[in-house]
Amino acid sequence: MIRFECDYAEGAHQKILENMMRTNLEQTAGYSEDVYSDHARELIRQACGNDDLDVHFLVGGTQTNLTVIASVLRPHQGVLCAVSGHVNVHETGAIEATGHKVLAMPSADGKITAEQVQEAYDAHWRDESREHIVQPGMVYISQPTENGTLYSKAELTALHETCVKCGLPLYVDGARLGYGMAAPTNDVTLKDLAELSDIFYIGGTKVGALFGEAVVIANPAYRQDFRYIIKQRGGMLAKGRLLGIQFETLFTDGLYFEISKHAVDLAMKIRKTCEEKGFAIQYESYTNQQFPILPNELVVELRKKYAFYTWQKVDEDHTSVRFCTSWATDAENVEQLLADIRAFGA
Amino acid sequence: MIRFECDYAEGAHQKILENMMRTNLEQTAGYSEDVYSDHARELIRQACGNDDLDVHFLVGGTQTNLTVIASVLRPHQGVLCAVSGHVNVHETGAIEATGHKVLAMPSADGKITAEQVQEAYDAHWRDESREHIVQPGMVYISQPTENGTLYSKAELTALHETCVKCGLPLYVDGARLGYGMAAPTNDVTLKDLAELSDIFYIGGTKVGALFGEAVVIANPAYRQDFRYIIKQRGGMLAKGRLLGIQFETLFTDGLYFEISKHAVDLAMKIRKTCEEKGFAIQYESYTNQQFPILPNELVVELRKKYAFYTWQKVDEDHTSVRFCTSWATDAENVEQLLADIRAFGA
Amino acid sequence: MIRFECDYAEGAHQKILENMMRTNLEQTAGYSEDVYSDHARELIRQACGNDDLDVHFLVGGTQTNLTVIASVLRPHQGVLCAVSGHVNVHETGAIEATGHKVLAMPSADGKITAEQVQEAYDAHWRDESREHIVQPGMVYISQPTENGTLYSKAELTALHETCVKCGLPLYVDGARLGYGMAAPTNDVTLKDLAELSDIFYIGGTKVGALFGEAVVIANPAYRQDFRYIIKQRGGMLAKGRLLGIQFETLFTDGLYFEISKHAVDLAMKIRKTCEEKGFAIQYESYTNQQFPILPNELVVELRKKYAFYTWQKVDEDHTSVRFCTSWATDAENVEQLLADIRAFGA
Amino acid sequence: MIRFECDYAEGAHQKILENMMRTNLEQTAGYSEDVYSDHARELIRQACGNDDLDVHFLVGGTQTNLTVIASVLRPHQGVLCAVSGHVNVHETGAIEATGHKVLAMPSADGKITAEQVQEAYDAHWRDESREHIVQPGMVYISQPTENGTLYSKAELTALHETCVKCGLPLYVDGARLGYGMAAPTNDVTLKDLAELSDIFYIGGTKVGALFGEAVVIANPAYRQDFRYIIKQRGGMLAKGRLLGIQFETLFTDGLYFEISKHAVDLAMKIRKTCEEKGFAIQYESYTNQQFPILPNELVVELRKKYAFYTWQKVDEDHTSVRFCTSWATDAENVEQLLADIRAFGA
Repeated sequence: MIRFECDYAEGAHQKILENMMRTNLEQTAGYSEDVYSDHARELIRQACGNDDLDVHFLVGGTQTNLTVIASVLRPHQGVLCAVSGHVNVHETGAIEATGHKVLAMPSADGKITAEQVQEAYDAHWRDESREHIVQPGMVYISQPTENGTLYSKAELTALHETCVKCGLPLYVDGARLGYGMAAPTNDVTLKDLAELSDIFYIGGTKVGALFGEAVVIANPAYRQDFRYIIKQRGGMLAKGRLLGIQFETLFTDGLYFEISKHAVDLAMKIRKTCEEKGFAIQYESYTNQQFPILPNELVVELRKKYAFYTWQKVDEDHTSVRFCTSWATDAENVEQLLADIRAFGA
Repeated sequence: MIRFECDYAEGAHQKILENMMRTNLEQTAGYSEDVYSDHARELIRQACGNDDLDVHFLVGGTQTNLTVIASVLRPHQGVLCAVSGHVNVHETGAIEATGHKVLAMPSADGKITAEQVQEAYDAHWRDESREHIVQPGMVYISQPTENGTLYSKAELTALHETCVKCGLPLYVDGARLGYGMAAPTNDVTLKDLAELSDIFYIGGTKVGALFGEAVVIANPAYRQDFRYIIKQRGGMLAKGRLLGIQFETLFTDGLYFEISKHAVDLAMKIRKTCEEKGFAIQYESYTNQQFPILPNELVVELRKKYAFYTWQKVDEDHTSVRFCTSWATDAENVEQLLADIRAFGA
Repeated sequence: MIRFECDYAEGAHQKILENMMRTNLEQTAGYSEDVYSDHARELIRQACGNDDLDVHFLVGGTQTNLTVIASVLRPHQGVLCAVSGHVNVHETGAIEATGHKVLAMPSADGKITAEQVQEAYDAHWRDESREHIVQPGMVYISQPTENGTLYSKAELTALHETCVKCGLPLYVDGARLGYGMAAPTNDVTLKDLAELSDIFYIGGTKVGALFGEAVVIANPAYRQDFRYIIKQRGGMLAKGRLLGIQFETLFTDGLYFEISKHAVDLAMKIRKTCEEKGFAIQYESYTNQQFPILPNELVVELRKKYAFYTWQKVDEDHTSVRFCTSWATDAENVEQLLADIRAFGA
Repeated sequence: MIRFECDYAEGAHQKILENMMRTNLEQTAGYSEDVYSDHARELIRQACGNDDLDVHFLVGGTQTNLTVIASVLRPHQGVLCAVSGHVNVHETGAIEATGHKVLAMPSADGKITAEQVQEAYDAHWRDESREHIVQPGMVYISQPTENGTLYSKAELTALHETCVKCGLPLYVDGARLGYGMAAPTNDVTLKDLAELSDIFYIGGTKVGALFGEAVVIANPAYRQDFRYIIKQRGGMLAKGRLLGIQFETLFTDGLYFEISKHAVDLAMKIRKTCEEKGFAIQYESYTNQQFPILPNELVVELRKKYAFYTWQKVDEDHTSVRFCTSWATDAENVEQLLADIRAFGA
């Protein structure tokens, strides 16, 4: 079975394992207070072109989201996000378990607009009974989204400006950030993210690391005591240098971007072949996730060799599916898939 | 600087890294639903001599404690533990953050007795205002304790019987379980633990793994939907096979016990040398943590070469300290330390 | 200004105040362990035709909802309800503050169907990633709903059967229960509620009491330690006899039903007059809340004399509003309102 | 049975009921946005000699404590208090249910000192592992304490200064504040409280009201969005004017102080008689709670006619008990009690 079902089916990039091996018996301080973590923080600051960034390392995405959100909000506040946002639908209520409502807004493609945020904010503040309603306290977006779509720099700037105007911190979930940045359509840099958001995270788990997410707190207002919250929520890794070593490796010589490009290039091939075959594509994704709408017979056929997600029943005869590539995807496996798609109905 | 300050200063046992390296590019299902995790679960069941055990893998100790406790208690219940219990003093209020009070009981050496549990239970239920008081809902102990002390099989049996009588599940934090089992004074086996507790965990982070704790739910009453709680609390590792591979390695050919013994043997040398030198020892620890009471001048002297924790000021001239050995401790480093202790005042 | 904006603008029914006055200096036990509370519990059991009901008194509706829901759910579970349900939109995230997600389902009129519950349940359990999603743990409905609509006995029976089949407790918010039972279209009795739901509450605050809601736990599975949860959530009234006296008064000689009928009779007059005038009515409400769709000019006109809620902009020229009557509504005030409505455009 | 077991055995002061009766059918806005609540807030500001105070009304003490504390603390912070503090021992873990640890400090008489606070603060901040420990985030004291003892103005000033220095808000639970202020030994005024604390509450439930506590937020830093938190925690009374009317009555013509004095005068008689009889008194209380240490035979004898709490077994032959007087205590009942005490052994 060839797996296109997710971007965390393999271990880590070879260089990461080598660096772990090489440093394995060194003795370091725990809890990411070691030299590798320090260096990784420095490399991330450099990649963001900004000396004044607070960088923390956590193990996984849900953990990161719940820790950041719990740290930022007061008890009566909620987090605005797209109805399809990971925090709304795929974290077993992790945000609610910290006491906060997720304020979901409609979205066809995983993105929300500055106008939606402004309207949600206005709707709250013009309501005379607003004390009986959860107050919007921050905005959560993902870049790329759960549907593989991307915010343009213009869209992100508009969101940023609205958030500043409304006093709402903007938090960007970058679980697949590398794959977003490698998209041919992308115009958002790490530097932009550090300027246009208050907090964002650079995903490692899905982009070449064994595990690990790097939280970047750009806005000093949200830095205080963040490490206490990490510890309280169970996210403080004892052997923190493992996170440091991984991000040091990924941010040395552009490895993070190089391996992301590998995944996106392969994903673009899948997209192109589907289009050539005349299959519609559900979302405007130019990242590592592709959502073609396939004839049911082809879906049945492909299932024999490949693992992938069924996304949605589109009509009686068609179903959208998700193919995920990653830093580790074997180009030959993709070629096989393309051949099998091309062969359909021939 | 030679580190005796904790048991997580190095990476992982060489075999673990080799197995990670070897399997690195295999594609597996995520979230510990892979073959390595299945095999590790099977090996742990075998080590416990019990086919009917629910085994889960989490990343760290605080995460494990808060997940287990949040899963077991109803909102108005608290967890009984020693005042020095990790959940009471060293997890930044992680348990309270899940809504539950830690009901601390006095303890001179980190242990609590069956009598204390019975008395706390009785005190609650005979109080006419008990609805105004947190109800004891479970018991937390650590084996070995934060002071390196151990429950004997007789003590554990007494706790078990009291817990059964009171309807209180018994949960054992085994962050350093290997070092407890390797103690010359130990008479508690994994099989005993599976019979005498409702839930316990086998610590990996401090005993040879990069990270990871194996939760064993012995009592079927506490198994339902545990994976949902792991996910909600941020403890569901995407590449769960990393946990599987580590515990598979540790529980193959008795590696877990072998490397634990290494640490304890070295700790016993430190204990013996201190005793020979006439220094008192603060706790009856025969595990990998040693708490000798040293002259302040010696403490100052040792600090120049070694990292270790100051534990407590004992009197104007003496201080207790903690030396930690581990699976990775270099025997020569211990010999140096012993030489420096012996040389004091000579 | 004549107030039709809510059903809690006045104090309490005269008989309640008299009974409070009469018993004022008696000494009783606190926390609803007094004879008045006992008698009120007994009267409620009689009104429900069921000797085996657990009855508790709380102060207000939000407090009651959060206490019941926190008591029933495990951490990873959420509560299914209509998108317009009070717990979803008008309690400042009180449910989320206890750690639980509100699982909102679409509803045009405030009601949800047995089919919706079944589908939500099935959708969860057929999802292979369900451990990453909040598990439906109970169902919340309100009778009447926030839109004044009512569940028929057939609809309630269908919900009950689905809930039993799915193992989901059914909880009925009866903040305005009296006004529902007094509706000319109602066919659901208290006895039905006690048979078809697991927990429901009989609203006092909006139906003649100064404050107070009577929680009836019909299903013994949800009774254990409920008073601890009341206390923990701040709902245990020290002078609990005040709640006892109020419900004793309301459930003596059918007072609760008599004063509810007063409110509904007046609401029906408002409905009839609007219909005669040719105004559409937004919801099929035969209870104390009426939602006519009025010409904007009339709304402006009425605002000069009356306080009432604007509900929704229907089109450029029309707006739906909410008129609330209550046990205390003065019939002459209603006549004035009717005259002013009839006079419009004449 | 004559009740000295608590100070909430009766209803309310006659004038309160009369004012409720008189205004009963007036229509007012809900949620304490009515003229009575406004007037009561104004009267409380006057009584505190301070125009700039934020005043809110809640129903009960536990509710008030959990709402204030949840509003002030960030997730990783806890509240310092005496081990005997109400929030620590008698609220079923209400504070922990909001996610926060109660940081209990030793106390023989219910009070804590400025030195203790300073030391707890220093201990936290000098600990290198402090991120693993709950951070002190505020200080809770009660005036008078659960043992009837009082902070002097000098003690309160010292606490205030320490709190300011450490950046810890000081919160004073005044459930029995009236009885504290009426103590012959008291030198703390409402004005002092408003200057020396950040937040305090004036207890109504135990001092003449049916229910109700008036929260005074002196420090503007803690005012933002407090009403949201009240609503979220279930403390927003729909008919808020009931709270307004009660505090308006209590703070008109000094009624609150007058009825408090009645209770304390009677308590002083009990104290004096016990002392004359040679009985030791457990706590230095000059408020409405008296804790004499009585011969067991006398305790048994008194139980036949009076309800009161057993406090503590002092030795084989002696037990301390608690007698509570209140605004409603009948002077003749006290005379009977005194006669029975005097008659013992005679």
